[in-house]
Amino acid sequence: MSIASAIDALTPIFGDRLSTSDALREQHGTNESHFALTLPDAVVFPETTQEVSELMRLCHAHSCPVVAFGTGTSLEGHHLAVQGGISLDMSRMNKVLQVNAEDLDVVIQPGLTREELNVDLRATGLYFPIDPGANASLGGMAATRASGTTAVKFGTMKDNVLALEVVLADGRVIRTGTRARKSSAGYDLTRLIVGSEGTLGIITELTLRLQGQPEAVSAATCRFASVEDAVNCVITTIQTGIPMARIELVDEMMVRGFNLHMNKDLPEAPHLFLEFQGSPASVAEQAETFGAIAEDFGGTGFNWTDRAEERNELWKMRHNGHYANNALNPGKKTLATDVCVPISQLAEAVTTAQRRSRELGITCTIVGHVGDGNFHCGCRVDPTDAEELARVTGFAEELADMALRLHGTVTGEHGIGLGKVKYMQKEHGPDALDAMRAIKLALDPKNILNPGKILPATNQ
Amino acid sequence: MSIASAIDALTPIFGDRLSTSDALREQHGTNESHFALTLPDAVVFPETTQEVSELMRLCHAHSCPVVAFGTGTSLEGHHLAVQGGISLDMSRMNKVLQVNAEDLDVVIQPGLTREELNVDLRATGLYFPIDPGANASLGGMAATRASGTTAVKFGTMKDNVLALEVVLADGRVIRTGTRARKSSAGYDLTRLIVGSEGTLGIITELTLRLQGQPEAVSAATCRFASVEDAVNCVITTIQTGIPMARIELVDEMMVRGFNLHMNKDLPEAPHLFLEFQGSPASVAEQAETFGAIAEDFGGTGFNWTDRAEERNELWKMRHNGHYANNALNPGKKTLATDVCVPISQLAEAVTTAQRRSRELGITCTIVGHVGDGNFHCGCRVDPTDAEELARVTGFAEELADMALRLHGTVTGEHGIGLGKVKYMQKEHGPDALDAMRAIKLALDPKNILNPGKILPATNQ
Repeated sequence: MSIASAIDALTPIFGDRLSTSDALREQHGTNESHFALTLPDAVVFPETTQEVSELMRLCHAHSCPVVAFGTGTSLEGHHLAVQGGISLDMSRMNKVLQVNAEDLDVVIQPGLTREELNVDLRATGLYFPIDPGANASLGGMAATRASGTTAVKFGTMKDNVLALEVVLADGRVIRTGTRARKSSAGYDLTRLIVGSEGTLGIITELTLRLQGQPEAVSAATCRFASVEDAVNCVITTIQTGIPMARIELVDEMMVRGFNLHMNKDLPEAPHLFLEFQGSPASVAEQAETFGAIAEDFGGTGFNWTDRAEERNELWKMRHNGHYANNALNPGKKTLATDVCVPISQLAEAVTTAQRRSRELGITCTIVGHVGDGNFHCGCRVDPTDAEELARVTGFAEELADMALRLHGTVTGEHGIGLGKVKYMQKEHGPDALDAMRAIKLALDPKNILNPGKILPATNQ
Repeated sequence: MSIASAIDALTPIFGDRLSTSDALREQHGTNESHFALTLPDAVVFPETTQEVSELMRLCHAHSCPVVAFGTGTSLEGHHLAVQGGISLDMSRMNKVLQVNAEDLDVVIQPGLTREELNVDLRATGLYFPIDPGANASLGGMAATRASGTTAVKFGTMKDNVLALEVVLADGRVIRTGTRARKSSAGYDLTRLIVGSEGTLGIITELTLRLQGQPEAVSAATCRFASVEDAVNCVITTIQTGIPMARIELVDEMMVRGFNLHMNKDLPEAPHLFLEFQGSPASVAEQAETFGAIAEDFGGTGFNWTDRAEERNELWKMRHNGHYANNALNPGKKTLATDVCVPISQLAEAVTTAQRRSRELGITCTIVGHVGDGNFHCGCRVDPTDAEELARVTGFAEELADMALRLHGTVTGEHGIGLGKVKYMQKEHGPDALDAMRAIKLALDPKNILNPGKILPATNQ
């Protein structure tokens, strides 16, 4: 009963779709954040639910850890096999199984990425709106309860997954939910699995809600004298009830990153990037109302366009935020914070973050899905510089504490993974954490599903 | 260790807020559906979370069942103490604790009803939109994952509860979630408790999302030659993307019930009852687009009004559906079915239901939140007439089977309670049901929280 014996048992089943090569193990052991290289013992590429089921049955028998792998774009080290075992690469399970255009839903496999899905849907006039920036796999997005720039209008993955097929720790296959829009039939296993980061089961199929392409879309930018002015403009916009499709804060440091990385020449000032959707008349009405609010907060250069190319260019730039950070001081890595607070607390949270990062001498960009009260500090750090790493992680802890003090959460959308395990007790308290542990133990008694993630081993 | 010893232990704590009187036990043992009178051993009226915690601690020690009681308006016998024990009446925990108008949220106690909340909010310009018809308690609405006429726009309770305070089976008190709009911090305990019907914990506090009062609201009615025409009109309306605030089907039998119960003189034909919300221009645009679609399906008498009194009168009538059933054949009870199917399957589902009820000689009204694919057959039955009860429950089973065949659910919003336990395995399969049982066992190892509800004792 060991990892080695599990690999022996899996080898005849998966053949050359099981690899222990250094190259593949390294590819699955790296990450886009500051965590150290962490090698799995083997990488397996399943092609069917049946294969995932058989793999879990054997890994359960051999007590071998299994960590699902989508595209590796997570920011908290979710896919790192910190206790060794199998990296289960879902990239070959990437089919669209069923487009139910008349019901505005789609059934897909978890390895499909969101961009691939939207290309596939193009002819239907429908699309999947959730957009975390990275071209992540949809299984991974469900596992981390991802959201992003469009959550202010469409919610997060929890609101857009209708049903899942899930392989449990011992290999049994369950379905959570149906294609009905709503149900009151028992415990909401769908929402329990969404956000469970591969610790309760392996997602092998997803039924997702789709949206119709809006009749009209406009994008806009507007700049402000300070992040505080920009955020106060957002607060009023949300409270006024304008149905924003996107409303993103980009601080002056992030603008500098965009200018360097993408050869732009935006004024280095805090900006809001915006999108409006609806009928042509309603889009015009929304933009006009927003423009009046922005003016009250000293917004200048409010500029809107209904040209698709300009809009795509804007969101491409925004989505490159994580990579544009690298242009600020190449060679360093990014530690991204992810607090989310009630919107009335947002100005305090963002201005405190900006002030403290400066006081601490940390190079840090601020971008935010501010309509939800969620923002990221992209803190630049050399992980081999112990002093700098401690300073940056200390800053991240300050922000986490602040978010909880302001009745918010330590992570709006990135998830817990490895990096935020230390905040779980502060956010939930020991008894809620024990309830989560009881659920984990009930569904994965041998702790083989992504062990070491989400739940701290003991109350702290 | 028994119910009697638990009551002995609770008596000094609750004094005259613990009662074993026949009158109170009967009041808490009746129901609005066809289930037999089922008396709890005692009724307790807690006033604080601390009292609920102490009660659970003692009932856990004495292995005494506890069943939370809101307003008793559930339709599947949720609040019936089928294994005896305590009926925990939450009506004294009915305070609004915190109105956070700037964040569009509110913190309340579970015994508060939705109408009471909305009266309390009147001066803020905000309201809580979920509307199951009955003036239910908000704790009860969360426990059954309620929805109703506005779910097509605002979703269900799962989408509108931000966080909960919950007393666990052994008396520990946890908080699930914060006031942030979204979070990826660990397992979604909020969504696990919402819809768990008091079987995993007692809700003692809720943080709810609010909506701003819309600038303009119009209500409308439209009648059709058949339920099929009406439903096909709904399908096209939803697929067109009109952001309907309400879209309700009322069949000819239900109209007869309204006419009798409320002294109306509507033509006895299938109707849609509608509501549009938005800016004045957008409401007019929506109504016009809908009108054109309705015409394509032979809709006549399309009539819209922006007068609040007429609108309130319309929804008051609709909400009286359950009681208007009684006017059709006084003395009988109503068994309400609650299937929900993908919208493309809705015409087949509704027409089959109407045809089969007639073939079986069942007096039955059809009303539906058809924008979600959810509809109810209000089957009139004399529960003491064994043949009629068997015929009606057989019909309900046919509809449940049909819903599952059409990729839907046996209950869109009423919940499982007692009446639908028998469908759980058909809908979820034995392994998903076992996963639910494992969660129940993990959180309530003595099975004292609303035992006998949701989960069948064994696989069937």
